[in-house]
Amino acid sequence: MLMKVVKFGGSSLANATQVRKVVEIVKADDQRRFVVVSAPGKRWSDDIKVTDLLIDYANRVIAAKPIADITDAIISRYQDIATAFHISTDQFAPIKQAILSLPDQTYQDNDYLMATFKAHGERLNALLFAQILAQEGVKAKYLDPHDAGILVTDHPNDAEIIPDSYAQIGEWTDSDIVRVIPGFFGYNLQGQICTFSRGGSDITGAIMARGVSADRYENFTDVNAIYAANPSVVTNPIAIHHMTFREMRELSYAGFSVFHDEALIPAIEGNIEVVVKNTNHPGERGTSITAAKRINPAYPVSGIASSPNFCGIYIRKYMLDKKAFSQKILHILSEYGLTYEHMPSGIDDLTVIMRQDQLTDDLEDRLIRELVIALKPDEIHITHDYALLMVVGEGMRNRTGLMSKATDALARQNVKLVMVNQGASEISMMFGIQQDKANAAIQALYETFFPEL
Amino acid sequence: MLMKVVKFGGSSLANATQVRKVVEIVKADDQRRFVVVSAPGKRWSDDIKVTDLLIDYANRVIAAKPIADITDAIISRYQDIATAFHISTDQFAPIKQAILSLPDQTYQDNDYLMATFKAHGERLNALLFAQILAQEGVKAKYLDPHDAGILVTDHPNDAEIIPDSYAQIGEWTDSDIVRVIPGFFGYNLQGQICTFSRGGSDITGAIMARGVSADRYENFTDVNAIYAANPSVVTNPIAIHHMTFREMRELSYAGFSVFHDEALIPAIEGNIEVVVKNTNHPGERGTSITAAKRINPAYPVSGIASSPNFCGIYIRKYMLDKKAFSQKILHILSEYGLTYEHMPSGIDDLTVIMRQDQLTDDLEDRLIRELVIALKPDEIHITHDYALLMVVGEGMRNRTGLMSKATDALARQNVKLVMVNQGASEISMMFGIQQDKANAAIQALYETFFPEL
Repeated sequence: MLMKVVKFGGSSLANATQVRKVVEIVKADDQRRFVVVSAPGKRWSDDIKVTDLLIDYANRVIAAKPIADITDAIISRYQDIATAFHISTDQFAPIKQAILSLPDQTYQDNDYLMATFKAHGERLNALLFAQILAQEGVKAKYLDPHDAGILVTDHPNDAEIIPDSYAQIGEWTDSDIVRVIPGFFGYNLQGQICTFSRGGSDITGAIMARGVSADRYENFTDVNAIYAANPSVVTNPIAIHHMTFREMRELSYAGFSVFHDEALIPAIEGNIEVVVKNTNHPGERGTSITAAKRINPAYPVSGIASSPNFCGIYIRKYMLDKKAFSQKILHILSEYGLTYEHMPSGIDDLTVIMRQDQLTDDLEDRLIRELVIALKPDEIHITHDYALLMVVGEGMRNRTGLMSKATDALARQNVKLVMVNQGASEISMMFGIQQDKANAAIQALYETFFPEL
Repeated sequence: MLMKVVKFGGSSLANATQVRKVVEIVKADDQRRFVVVSAPGKRWSDDIKVTDLLIDYANRVIAAKPIADITDAIISRYQDIATAFHISTDQFAPIKQAILSLPDQTYQDNDYLMATFKAHGERLNALLFAQILAQEGVKAKYLDPHDAGILVTDHPNDAEIIPDSYAQIGEWTDSDIVRVIPGFFGYNLQGQICTFSRGGSDITGAIMARGVSADRYENFTDVNAIYAANPSVVTNPIAIHHMTFREMRELSYAGFSVFHDEALIPAIEGNIEVVVKNTNHPGERGTSITAAKRINPAYPVSGIASSPNFCGIYIRKYMLDKKAFSQKILHILSEYGLTYEHMPSGIDDLTVIMRQDQLTDDLEDRLIRELVIALKPDEIHITHDYALLMVVGEGMRNRTGLMSKATDALARQNVKLVMVNQGASEISMMFGIQQDKANAAIQALYETFFPEL
């Protein structure tokens, strides 16, 4: 029998109405053997996610502030769902107790405290959802990441999977029980809870899928598919029904936030098909992400995205020794703990493109001063508020004329190109533009590359 | 009175007819106080330059082979010119003697031997030309680089100027005598002859111009001007009558070989106007190179050039740490003594563009193997025979639409863009293309950026 790992995001589990949809999805397909859940998300646009309530709770405990209202708020989120599904008070008691007793455990330090508090958003939701499934007649059991075998590195709030985990996870396949696993966290070798980076339930799903060698990893969220451009910028963009891992990776980099970046790694390693689907419209085809290239795609471009808040440090020095120059720059960036995205070089000049949220005014001043001392440049200046615009598509390989189409579309919108980078990736073009032009640029590129057929 | 340093290249001094033109040019303007000369160049297309005869001579001495025919050939080149200008046998004797006695001097090693042999092409030509000028009634004297104060680093065949030289050179300004200085070499602190890199007479001229704070450095060669594109590729390209140092630098990088790259540095440092003129048509306006930008240029682009024989090493690794990755690559390149030109990076990939003549097949194999071991890439491959195409112009600053025009022109010629790099330099765009398309690409770009007005 085919086997699927299914993951439901926070909006899919925000309230009883949503949870009902999830129950039906799990019931509808008995290949769905492993269910990974997020913490309950927002019920309306200015609602607070349970994870954020838990972070607030942890910070109050650390600061020794009153906590009664926040524990009440957290408990009621689970209680509302439990009540709707006729979960008894007795059954619910351990969940309530777990929330209240979080401050009573001992933690190595505040980082571990924070990790454990946060992880309980998913943990208790999985406990509750396993009860609900059972109540609804599904043979289901909670599976803790500890028992599942999800071992992670010793970084309490930014852990990574330890590859040995997969063999252990692989032993959970031989059963007719639906296992409900909380996303977002694992255990280090000392048995302490460590979470992945924020949004890490996608990662848990991918890890489980790889571990049990699933045939498919279904990632349920609140969109019908991944679109060729952001629907809040382009009206009715076309859905991408099939894309490759590399396309997904390049698009997520530039702001497609549908699927967590790090979650792609286990999927790629295990060559597991990832399908993004909508909890609210499970009959929609969604977007399938695989290693295989599309045959004869209708368009050479798959998607267009942009990401704001980059800055560029322009450095010019006559007859610079490029190797020594780059090495000095990389060394200084390392000293300051800064990462860079691109470093295009001209004959006698070089621009360091980086995310500007890494820099405070003070840090920026110090960085520039240090670069001046180390490089003695003829000219140096920093420009803020760039957006990086990405045009991505496997169909772009070996195609002539796409750069011309793209730059022509941008020129017609008077978008000044502060950077053009093509040639490293074979499936994308990257443009640096002023970020206040980003939406106009995306609209122009969309019209160019997705004309009505 | 204004003061000019004048330099004449090898073709301007190849035979008596040419030397006559040079005499007239020096006589025509008494602001021309310092005359820097190259060694006699080719008289016809398959002639041998005196410098190459001297290299042959040096190699024969090193190998203890017969030398009589080569010394005869060298002597006759100078003798022919001396005879035409009625230089007496007595006057010519020291030149002949200098050629014959080169093997009798003691040299620290063969590198210094080679340097001294080569330098005599210029040295003896300057001695002879000073005699000729005097014969023609010009108050002229030979000035040896040693007495001029041209001190250079201790690299016998690739020396660089020591900046202290300029103060010493500056003391030679107060005189009504035309000084004739051999180009191409200086002396190290031990008093040994060291040459600049090949073609280095341009450098001597620029050093003299900076040292004496000349108002202009006139570089006489065999073209009426620097053209917007190579005249052997584009029919009747327009002349560039004024360009900036930066434009010249970017165009020389990509193959404009009119003026030696390193010679720009003293000119920039001293802010000396460089004028490229034609010995055969001294009345032509030539090309003036200065720091000042052109006011209202007719075209945003100044010149288009391409340089062949680049290769690109494409390296892909999922979720690479760009900083660590680049540092490893730079380290490996250093180990192998390799330089790179550009390193455009995508999200998960990076291409190292370098001059392929640095790599033998064997070195290439070892380099790739070492990169594989150090980086464990998901994919690595090397592609040969790229040309880098440069579109350069100060008028390109802050202009929208030029990239679109360029890429459109290239697409219409079916030129595939393997790399596009814009954004480091503000005054150029760079394209990587297959080199067998380079001429078609230059023609297309020329027609686009230099339409008949």
